[in-house]
Amino acid sequence: MTASDTLKLKPGDTIGILGGGQLGRMLAMAAARLGLRCQVFSPDPDSPAFDVVQRATCAEYADVEALELFANDVDVVTYEFENVPAATALVLAARRPVLPAQKILETTQDRLIEKDFVSRLGIGTADYADVTSVGSLRAAIARIGLPAVVKTRRFGYDGKGQAIVREGDDLDAVWDSLGTKSAILEAFVPFEREISVIAARSATGEVECFDVTENEHRDHILKISRAPAAISDELATQARAIAGKIAAALDYVGVLAVEMFVVSGKGTPTVLVNEIAPRVHNSGHWTLDGASISQFEQHIRAIAGWPLGMPVRHGAVTMTNLIGDDILSYEQWLTVPGATVHLYGKGAPRPGRKMGHVTEVAPPRKP
Amino acid sequence: MTASDTLKLKPGDTIGILGGGQLGRMLAMAAARLGLRCQVFSPDPDSPAFDVVQRATCAEYADVEALELFANDVDVVTYEFENVPAATALVLAARRPVLPAQKILETTQDRLIEKDFVSRLGIGTADYADVTSVGSLRAAIARIGLPAVVKTRRFGYDGKGQAIVREGDDLDAVWDSLGTKSAILEAFVPFEREISVIAARSATGEVECFDVTENEHRDHILKISRAPAAISDELATQARAIAGKIAAALDYVGVLAVEMFVVSGKGTPTVLVNEIAPRVHNSGHWTLDGASISQFEQHIRAIAGWPLGMPVRHGAVTMTNLIGDDILSYEQWLTVPGATVHLYGKGAPRPGRKMGHVTEVAPPRKP
Repeated sequence: MTASDTLKLKPGDTIGILGGGQLGRMLAMAAARLGLRCQVFSPDPDSPAFDVVQRATCAEYADVEALELFANDVDVVTYEFENVPAATALVLAARRPVLPAQKILETTQDRLIEKDFVSRLGIGTADYADVTSVGSLRAAIARIGLPAVVKTRRFGYDGKGQAIVREGDDLDAVWDSLGTKSAILEAFVPFEREISVIAARSATGEVECFDVTENEHRDHILKISRAPAAISDELATQARAIAGKIAAALDYVGVLAVEMFVVSGKGTPTVLVNEIAPRVHNSGHWTLDGASISQFEQHIRAIAGWPLGMPVRHGAVTMTNLIGDDILSYEQWLTVPGATVHLYGKGAPRPGRKMGHVTEVAPPRKP
Repeated sequence: MTASDTLKLKPGDTIGILGGGQLGRMLAMAAARLGLRCQVFSPDPDSPAFDVVQRATCAEYADVEALELFANDVDVVTYEFENVPAATALVLAARRPVLPAQKILETTQDRLIEKDFVSRLGIGTADYADVTSVGSLRAAIARIGLPAVVKTRRFGYDGKGQAIVREGDDLDAVWDSLGTKSAILEAFVPFEREISVIAARSATGEVECFDVTENEHRDHILKISRAPAAISDELATQARAIAGKIAAALDYVGVLAVEMFVVSGKGTPTVLVNEIAPRVHNSGHWTLDGASISQFEQHIRAIAGWPLGMPVRHGAVTMTNLIGDDILSYEQWLTVPGATVHLYGKGAPRPGRKMGHVTEVAPPRKP
C-alpha cells in the first residue's frame, strides 16, 4: 500500500501546487470550490495562480529549503506542468505524497521512453526511432521514410524543439538546429483529425474519462477544442479505452491527457497515440463550463483521495483559446450570448502566450 | 454623470469586497475568472473568502484607518451583505466608488422604507403597517387582521427578528420579545409558492434577469431553489419586470435579488414583493453551474463597468443548501452523477449555518 492509497484530505486541508500559471490557477479555484485550500509554489512573482490563494511560495524549483518549508505547509503536492525537475520532486516526495507520482514524470518527460511505454501496451503510435547523431537520423529516415518529424526527447512543447524533415532537406542543418544529442524521429502521420481524451484515475483505481475532444492547432498551439469529437461511437470508445489503459499502466492518480491522431488507414479509422500530458490539459478547459464537473475538479478529487465525479456534459461545447493579441478582443467576447470568458490575469500579451479562453455551449436548449 | 457611469476596470485591477463569507468568496472567484483581482475586508480572521484572494484586510468595519488603507488598495468597492454600516460606506465612498451605491442601503436596510419604496412604484406587497409600541401593534392588527407577522425594521435575516402573531396571542409578550421600538406588521400572505428574481443592472442601465427561481424554505432558511420556477410565462414576465423596475428606480449597479410571493387571489395568480436583497443571493447559486454566466460574474461585470453577460441556462436546475450538519453528507453528494458540490471552507457546522450547496442540472441531454 502506497501513501496515495491511504491519503484522504478533509475540507480545510491544503494542497501544494507546483507551478503558478493558468493551470495552477484553475486547479486552485477548483479546490476552493470543494473547501480545500491551496498553496502555490512558483519562481515567478507575477504568477497568475498567486492571485487566487492566500499562501504562496515564490522561489526557484532548485531551492531545497523553500521546497522543504512548502512541503511542511501542505498535505499533498501536485503540479501543473510535466517538466518538474526530478530533484524537486524527490525533495518533496520525501516529505509529502506527490501525485501524480514522480516515476510517471520519468516516462512522460522523455518522448522515447513514452513511445516505448505506449508501444509495449500494444497501443498504436506513429513509427519512431531513437536518434542520437546525424548518422542515426539518416538511418532512421531510411527506415521510416519522409516526411517525418524530428523532436528533442525532452522539454519540447507547443512546437518548440521539433522540425519537419522533407525530401531534399539538409540533414546536417536540421540536426544542428535541434541542439541536442537525444532526439526521436517520428513518421509524419496523415491524420484525419486530432483528438484528446482527458482521463481521471482515482487512488483506488477508478477511471472516468470526459467525452473525446477534437482539437485544432494553429502554429503548433491549440486554438479550438470541440466536445464531443465528430467521430463514431466505436472510435470514441477505443480512444477512451486507450486513455484508461495508459492511466492504469502508470498507476496514475489524477488527471492526464492523451493526445491522439485519427487516421483512416485502409478503410476503418483508427487512433494513434501522439503524446501523454501528466496533468490537466488545455483541451479539457471546455469542462469548466461545459460539464457538471471540470477536469480541474477531477484532478483535485483524485489527489485528495476523494471519489471521482461523474460529469454530465451540458451540450455541444466549443472552447477557443485567446492567444497573444487575441486577448485584445475580450470586450467583444464579453457580449456574445452564452459565451463564458476566462482571463488568466497575465500581464502583457506576447505571441503564442495563452492569455485566456472562451467557452460556448450550443445549442441553447430549454428543458 | 456619476462615478459609476465612467468607471471601467481593466483586467488586473482590484475589487474591494466588504464581507468575507461564502458570497464574498464566490464573488472573488468570479472576478478571478475575468482576470480581476480582489481584496477582502472582514473582521473575522477565519473568513472563507480570505482563502481565495492574495490580499485581505482583517479589521473591524468601524476601523477608519483600516478602511482608508483598504480603499487605497482597490479600484472599486462592493459588499456581500446588506447591513454595511452607513459610516463604513461613507468612509469608503469618499475615496472610491462604492457599488451598489450607499443610498440604496438606506432603503433596503429598513423594512418600512423598503415597503414604502416598493409601494410607491405601484408594485404589490403584503399589507403592512408601521409599529412603534404595543398600542400601535394593536391598531395595526385591527386594520390588517390576523395571522400576521411582526418584524424588526432593521437587521433581520433568516427568520431572526420576527414573530408570527395569531389570534389570542399575548401582544405584550410578543412586542417585548422583539426588543425594538421600530417594527413593521405585515399581513400573513397565503402564498402558493415563493419565487425570486436575480437581476443585474449595468452602469449604463441595461438590465438582465436570470430565469425566475422557485424557493423552498425550512425553519426560515432557504433549503432548495429550482430554476425555472413552475409558473406561467406571463407570471415570470411580470416577476422579471418587477425586479427590473426596482433596479431602475434604485439606479442600481450590480446584482440584486427580489423575493416574491405568488398568490392566487381571485383566480389569476399574481406576485407580491416580499423583500429586496441588494447583493448576490442564495437563491441565485444555481447560476454557478446551471448557466453560462453566474450571478457572481454578473455582479462583477456590472460593478467593473463591463457589459452584462447574456446567460444561457443549461437545463432544469436544482440547488440544495447544505445547512449545519447537512455538511456531514458531503461525501455522499460527491458520488451523485451530475451533481456539483460546493463547500464553503467554513469551520465547525452550527445549526442554521450555511456550509455549502449542491447543484444538479437535469435532465442530462445529448446534443
